[in-house]
Amino acid sequence: MSHEDCIFCKIINGEIPSAKVYEDEHVYAFLDISQVTKGHTLVIPKVHTKNIFETPPEVAKELFARVPIIANAIRDAYQPLGMNLLNNNERAAEQSVFHLHIHLIPRYGEGDGYTPNWTTHNDDYTPEDLQNIAADIAKEIK
Amino acid sequence: MSHEDCIFCKIINGEIPSAKVYEDEHVYAFLDISQVTKGHTLVIPKVHTKNIFETPPEVAKELFARVPIIANAIRDAYQPLGMNLLNNNERAAEQSVFHLHIHLIPRYGEGDGYTPNWTTHNDDYTPEDLQNIAADIAKEIK
Repeated sequence: MSHEDCIFCKIINGEIPSAKVYEDEHVYAFLDISQVTKGHTLVIPKVHTKNIFETPPEVAKELFARVPIIANAIRDAYQPLGMNLLNNNERAAEQSVFHLHIHLIPRYGEGDGYTPNWTTHNDDYTPEDLQNIAADIAKEIK
Repeated sequence: MSHEDCIFCKIINGEIPSAKVYEDEHVYAFLDISQVTKGHTLVIPKVHTKNIFETPPEVAKELFARVPIIANAIRDAYQPLGMNLLNNNERAAEQSVFHLHIHLIPRYGEGDGYTPNWTTHNDDYTPEDLQNIAADIAKEIK
């Protein structure tokens, strides 16, 4: 099920070395070489899937079941103050390796390397607007 | 299993109104009123759990199994160029409601409201450093 040109499939196969944190039948976890913060880990499914849009629920399920276990191991090792989980899908969302991966980014306080900037738009939508958007999405649930 | 003072438990129970996108036995999804981008949705477990550190694998599993389904519904409704999934744990990681939630943030291009800023540290760690960090974490896996 591995994909010939995928760097993460090669990491799973051992063709490319990695700093492995965890491995089982379904999941492989290793340090992100960018180490946005110390202990920054990637959790990936062993089966190749491009991103969340193409991931079967059964694969998502097995992947995320391991996340609390690995998150707690990072916390026990380094006592961060918190942790962000992040997953980027498609280039417009900063995906750069096209094998689904969840970033686990332990947080140590301001200036630690990760600063999510987001703009809230609470005043741009009425409650009715929100109901209409929710209905637009709900009718596409398959 | 709901938590008396939890705003998200009250949303699940219908005590507080929400723009609901999806609901089943295990999961509830609704629009984030901040609408960082149009269609910005929160996916939460019905059972109250504070954050990823306190979430049993079985709860994480059922939660994440629904994420591809909801992500694709948002994509089908609004054709974003990509999507970020984000989950914040503890105040140091910008958690503000203490009931586990996954943000699904559709992306429409630069300036759309969400800009993850992160600093990479590739040059701060040798391969040996990375192996040592991975070993520190691996030995805490329970």
